[in-house]
Amino acid sequence: MASDIVVDHRDKAISLLKADSDKILKLIQVQMDNLTMPQCPLYEEVLDTQMFGLSREMDFAVRLGLISEKEGKDILSKLERELSALHEAWEKN
Amino acid sequence: MASDIVVDHRDKAISLLKADSDKILKLIQVQMDNLTMPQCPLYEEVLDTQMFGLSREMDFAVRLGLISEKEGKDILSKLERELSALHEAWEKN
Repeated sequence: MASDIVVDHRDKAISLLKADSDKILKLIQVQMDNLTMPQCPLYEEVLDTQMFGLSREMDFAVRLGLISEKEGKDILSKLERELSALHEAWEKN
Repeated sequence: MASDIVVDHRDKAISLLKADSDKILKLIQVQMDNLTMPQCPLYEEVLDTQMFGLSREMDFAVRLGLISEKEGKDILSKLERELSALHEAWEKN
């Protein structure tokens, strides 16, 4: 049925975006677990680049009509909260 | 019909990727047309960032099964040829 195909693409898009988001969460978690280690200067750039990449995928999925803007924003804002928690932890350290 | 929906998403994905690729081509063209002007140092970074963004969209569309890897590579390699022509022109200038 046509609606199965649309749902399939939609579900697939959401699961890909969540998987990519989880990869960034893991990067953040590794840093959180190793705060005492000297902060690798490139780490922030890696995180920024990955966040930019994910936001472009998100925007693409929204423009394709596969996810709503809100769904995209929810995934990104969750990550942004984790990122600012990491920045705070870095500053306190 | 189910196949119309699949084709619709596929066509839409390809036209979005081509439109984004054309935006980068225009950025390159502007530089090519203004070679005598002092080269804006940030321009290369803007182009690199845009190329990275497009490659992430491309990869996402391939993983979604909306375009083939070859279709993605064809769009990107055309851009990369234009980019290296621009770099050559910069060096000669």
